[in-house]
Amino acid sequence: MPKVITSFSNPLVKRVQALRDKRHRREEGMFLAEGLRILTEARETGRIPRILFFADASAKHPLVRALIDAVEADYGEAIETTPDILSKLSGKDNPQAVVGVFDTFETLLEDLDRSAAPIWLVAERLRDPGNLGTILRTGDAVGAGALILIDECVDPFSVEAVRASMGALFTVPIVRVIWPEFLTWLRQGPGQLVGLSLQTENGYRDAPYAAPTFLLTGNEAQGLPEDYEAECDLLVKMPMLGKADSLNAAVATAVMAYEVLARHR
Amino acid sequence: MPKVITSFSNPLVKRVQALRDKRHRREEGMFLAEGLRILTEARETGRIPRILFFADASAKHPLVRALIDAVEADYGEAIETTPDILSKLSGKDNPQAVVGVFDTFETLLEDLDRSAAPIWLVAERLRDPGNLGTILRTGDAVGAGALILIDECVDPFSVEAVRASMGALFTVPIVRVIWPEFLTWLRQGPGQLVGLSLQTENGYRDAPYAAPTFLLTGNEAQGLPEDYEAECDLLVKMPMLGKADSLNAAVATAVMAYEVLARHR
Repeated sequence: MPKVITSFSNPLVKRVQALRDKRHRREEGMFLAEGLRILTEARETGRIPRILFFADASAKHPLVRALIDAVEADYGEAIETTPDILSKLSGKDNPQAVVGVFDTFETLLEDLDRSAAPIWLVAERLRDPGNLGTILRTGDAVGAGALILIDECVDPFSVEAVRASMGALFTVPIVRVIWPEFLTWLRQGPGQLVGLSLQTENGYRDAPYAAPTFLLTGNEAQGLPEDYEAECDLLVKMPMLGKADSLNAAVATAVMAYEVLARHR
Repeated sequence: MPKVITSFSNPLVKRVQALRDKRHRREEGMFLAEGLRILTEARETGRIPRILFFADASAKHPLVRALIDAVEADYGEAIETTPDILSKLSGKDNPQAVVGVFDTFETLLEDLDRSAAPIWLVAERLRDPGNLGTILRTGDAVGAGALILIDECVDPFSVEAVRASMGALFTVPIVRVIWPEFLTWLRQGPGQLVGLSLQTENGYRDAPYAAPTFLLTGNEAQGLPEDYEAECDLLVKMPMLGKADSLNAAVATAVMAYEVLARHR
């Protein structure tokens, strides 16, 4: 039977709300995801929240019901609460019907099977959680083997990243490593490292892509460091016809990923 | 000579800060843009702020100097202020060196010359200011003739949209119209209306694009209404290999825009 919480001062509400903060996520090893669509995606991939908050009014919805059942079967806690508390937990004015608290998870480089996918996404010092989530979502769409986060990136478990991923956080494996570790692993097997760059004459539409292709995206403001570019097997550029000299990082990654996907098919 | 403002309670500071709110932007016909890169972009396209706030420490930077000179030559006000006040104006913890207050502007359908560009971006009920700004930025990169906003879209002059556009707000014309007006105008001359859809078997890589191509992007949550799809000359779909059935709206627009660009070149 679901518990009921209606008080803002309930200690569990405060503790869960604190997960919007990176330090608390790290200390607790847990993170927040909200919304029926994302939580259902999670459930279908076998990730069940430890704690599920749902609004009274939504309890009859079959997908909410399925979540409650899954949480209780998994010895988690399903908690009925008010729209106001859901709003407080998610930090949004129009709260979603459900908020889940999940254990964080991580994939290791050695767990990856590079023959499993023709495209892999690699991002370096990504700063914007919306970009990270959007890149995960694109990764899901193009069937990327994983998103490999290099050096100091924004936390993929931040509320904004989870929200922008639209559930792809649960379907695309995420690896966090430093550059030398990644390079060592990459060079132990087949894999073409492709970087987007302004320092090349190779157009991205004509370049020779070879699977598995590892698409490397640089920091939003600075792009790739020169010595990282130097390690790439191929640098390509995209046409920039306007006044600006760069695209949004998630956009550039997606245009490249769809190009590589089309060429590999 | 620049004026100096150091007090949070200065009425001008309060009035400018209020421009972060849509209602005030509409009432005043003005909006905020921040950052040296974006304001320099604006200056180079001939858009000079009515009021420029700059931090004392930055006044010696040649690009800040150029902005101050341009504002004063244009009978605007250049105001030296503190980092704290800049932070308050922009709503960011790490304030940019400059914040500008600009008159809003708009392009009308009848001002567009459809022979001027092979690609035009059209977005319907766009809700997210980050997506709008990112689509503008992509529009700049692919040389789009304009961004045409259909029906009730988010305000392109919101702080988040301006920020995400990275200056493209000043380089890509923006038109705001309702659907029937747009359709009437479109059908008065050449123009292929292309919609991204799940209801078609046409792959986007093989579809026959004809310039000028008008790329229509639907609402983030709902996509295009059926009757809008029915007006399209061509519906195309993109491969979705994962669990999700859609991409981020700005990402989908960019992948399509780069495809059309490549095919027209």
